[in-house]
Amino acid sequence: MAPPQQKNVGILAIEIYFPPTCIQQEVLEAHDGASKGKYTIGLGQDCMGFCTEVEDVISMSLTAVNSLLEKYAVDPKQVGRLEVGSETVIDKSKSIKTFLMQIFEKCGNTDIEGVDSTNACYGGTAALFNCVNWVESSSWDGRYGLVVCTDSAVYAEGPARPTGGAAAIAMLIGPNAPIVFESKIRASHMAHVYDFYKPILDSEYPVVDGKLSQTCYLMALDACYKSLCNKYEKLEGKQFSIADAAYFVFHSPYNKLVQKSFARLLFNDFLRNACSIDKSAKEKLAPFLSLSGDESYQSRDLEKTSQQVAKPFYNEKVQPTTLIPKQVGNMYTASLYAAFASLLHNKHNTLAGQRVMLFSYGSGSTATMFSLKLNEGQHPFSLSNIASAMNVAEKLKSRHELVPEKFVEIMQLMEHRYGAKDFVTSKDCSLLAPGTYYLTEVDSKYRRFYAKKASENGLVNGH
Amino acid sequence: MAPPQQKNVGILAIEIYFPPTCIQQEVLEAHDGASKGKYTIGLGQDCMGFCTEVEDVISMSLTAVNSLLEKYAVDPKQVGRLEVGSETVIDKSKSIKTFLMQIFEKCGNTDIEGVDSTNACYGGTAALFNCVNWVESSSWDGRYGLVVCTDSAVYAEGPARPTGGAAAIAMLIGPNAPIVFESKIRASHMAHVYDFYKPILDSEYPVVDGKLSQTCYLMALDACYKSLCNKYEKLEGKQFSIADAAYFVFHSPYNKLVQKSFARLLFNDFLRNACSIDKSAKEKLAPFLSLSGDESYQSRDLEKTSQQVAKPFYNEKVQPTTLIPKQVGNMYTASLYAAFASLLHNKHNTLAGQRVMLFSYGSGSTATMFSLKLNEGQHPFSLSNIASAMNVAEKLKSRHELVPEKFVEIMQLMEHRYGAKDFVTSKDCSLLAPGTYYLTEVDSKYRRFYAKKASENGLVNGH
Repeated sequence: MAPPQQKNVGILAIEIYFPPTCIQQEVLEAHDGASKGKYTIGLGQDCMGFCTEVEDVISMSLTAVNSLLEKYAVDPKQVGRLEVGSETVIDKSKSIKTFLMQIFEKCGNTDIEGVDSTNACYGGTAALFNCVNWVESSSWDGRYGLVVCTDSAVYAEGPARPTGGAAAIAMLIGPNAPIVFESKIRASHMAHVYDFYKPILDSEYPVVDGKLSQTCYLMALDACYKSLCNKYEKLEGKQFSIADAAYFVFHSPYNKLVQKSFARLLFNDFLRNACSIDKSAKEKLAPFLSLSGDESYQSRDLEKTSQQVAKPFYNEKVQPTTLIPKQVGNMYTASLYAAFASLLHNKHNTLAGQRVMLFSYGSGSTATMFSLKLNEGQHPFSLSNIASAMNVAEKLKSRHELVPEKFVEIMQLMEHRYGAKDFVTSKDCSLLAPGTYYLTEVDSKYRRFYAKKASENGLVNGH
Repeated sequence: MAPPQQKNVGILAIEIYFPPTCIQQEVLEAHDGASKGKYTIGLGQDCMGFCTEVEDVISMSLTAVNSLLEKYAVDPKQVGRLEVGSETVIDKSKSIKTFLMQIFEKCGNTDIEGVDSTNACYGGTAALFNCVNWVESSSWDGRYGLVVCTDSAVYAEGPARPTGGAAAIAMLIGPNAPIVFESKIRASHMAHVYDFYKPILDSEYPVVDGKLSQTCYLMALDACYKSLCNKYEKLEGKQFSIADAAYFVFHSPYNKLVQKSFARLLFNDFLRNACSIDKSAKEKLAPFLSLSGDESYQSRDLEKTSQQVAKPFYNEKVQPTTLIPKQVGNMYTASLYAAFASLLHNKHNTLAGQRVMLFSYGSGSTATMFSLKLNEGQHPFSLSNIASAMNVAEKLKSRHELVPEKFVEIMQLMEHRYGAKDFVTSKDCSLLAPGTYYLTEVDSKYRRFYAKKASENGLVNGH
């Protein structure tokens, strides 16, 4: 007989890193000559983080991994799998994971499975599922898994530019976790579409069809939700509705889409005649009952009405997840988990026993809706300690707001540097927190070199 | 109590596709003005396959997946996971997996997990492990997994050019397989090195340090083998040696490296005083006992002597795995599995009950040595049926040998087309086998369009 699977496999710990450099959306809006509220209300965004020339997806992930290991006193030898999700390509062959091996090699641990998972903003979710499956598989060797989501989202000058952002998130995976995967409550929708893609290989900027991408996102959301509801009903013998989860966490390109998405779930509940929809809501949504699927994605009236009906539920079930995505912007693969980190930050002391639904979307397209069940856990792997160790409020507060002229200048330099060789950076790490890794040089063979700003205890460690 | 894991999870079926266009290494050697035997004996290669302008990694993988589903009468709805390993980047965000979704979407199946795994030639192995773990995990929904390795290896004019190749392999994954993973007999070595990488984003060609890459490969091989031997000894209470596996299958950039690699395992056995080394071998290898690790990678005498000692074992345990890699060339992620397919082709009727060791290497670097245990299986998922369905001899025989001038012309066109938009191909599929997918157009928005050559039964199906 095969051995039983490990129990309660999930996320033991989370660390988040985002650059200390940011720009207020209100300020950018004025600088760009956009109509007042276009970025702040239209997109629903407050602020945008970005990498300067000393940071990139590799340095951010080095920082996040190193910080997680230190904060939780995890011996690097105790990691048996390390996977990265990213869509920020610095090298088309060498994985970001191999850069992170520097942290483990120096401790003599090179026996670590896993590489990079890639598909737009979904790669981190694929890496996370892979890591959880590993712990549940016969290949598991008793050590921790580690999942890293790292991305820098930058756009060409124009209407998409305010939807940038940058962050890295590291998650420690193992059994007996406070954040457990309900692996049967999960549905995916994957399809061949060209909504957002990166075919211009020597440019960091994507090709985006904004309207198509939003529709693809909402269609994938509908498909996942319908499939998940069907699976839940077969499994539990009762209907699923938004009442069956305490919180809903969405991949957040910009907050307005999250608002629309949650309203869309409510509209789905209405169409399915679910118990989450009361009499008054039914009356308000009744005029939209006859819309075809296509029409429903185009109807401004439906969008407005469903968001209005959803508002009190949104405030309760979604708003606590929006802090970091609104403050940092789109972090691509890290975006969904930054939203989840926001929830832990805001609600860690009331989350035990609760179900949280997550929706991951990557253009191209790949999408999964999945369920997590939370328990308080055991120190150091407890919800309260995760919230405290992430230290989100302090990280947000200690950021430096740059003026638009400086932001534009940095974007120009980064554009020039993308794919380039043979340069040294300013090595100016004055704005970086102690313990942060930064880029020092790309040599004539395109090899990248990083250093680490001294920790508060004075230790320095370069690579 | 958690449910037990699925048993005998592994590979149920394999399909291999390589382009019908190739060039003899002997002919290329003469054309390039290289010394006689440089490619054929020096590299150990016979022939090289390559894509013409109507084929790429997407068309090859569409062909391999479609062909596998057809040959084994697998309903596309019965696939619950699809993963791709590749290092040939056509888009930096949109995965190859999403292109393959076209086959499944038309059958109404979009609930298929998995994306692309990337790290040089290792991505396919990562995808394979992920898929096996999925079947063993609590997330498994009873459906098949599907792993695809697809790559086109092309090099700039010069000494590396004859080490190209191209292929796609599809593997069906599930329980009760004829090719079973011995998941505890597995060891990895991952490190941060710059031996082969692709930092020049608008070029298909890699940056390669040939000598360093070979040393990194052999060092990773040593590290994996040592670690695997240790794990085996703890598990089985006895020493592991090359006598404990019937066959050894290597990632094959070129055959000469496979010869060196197997000799290296034998040298490891000698250093460990393993039972595979007889008195005469001990005497021949004794002079090298005192070499340091570094010296041992540089010593030509050791290389020559260990290969001489290893020759009879090589002929027995490795030679049957070399057919396709020698005939098609380096297929990057598909290379290791093309070697394994060669073994199934050559030895399928004597493989039941045997153990086969595989060594996967991806520059950057990532490497794993792992063990498969074979049984005859049940039709259609039997070793003999897999060998028959792959039809390797016929596929090799029906290829078209092109002259060097034509090969160079095609390489120039492909170089020009890499990353380009707004062109139509010749749509000339006269050399392609019935049922093969091919590229017809890349439009002004970089969107790629494919068609399928009519099957022998006359059915056509474009995308």
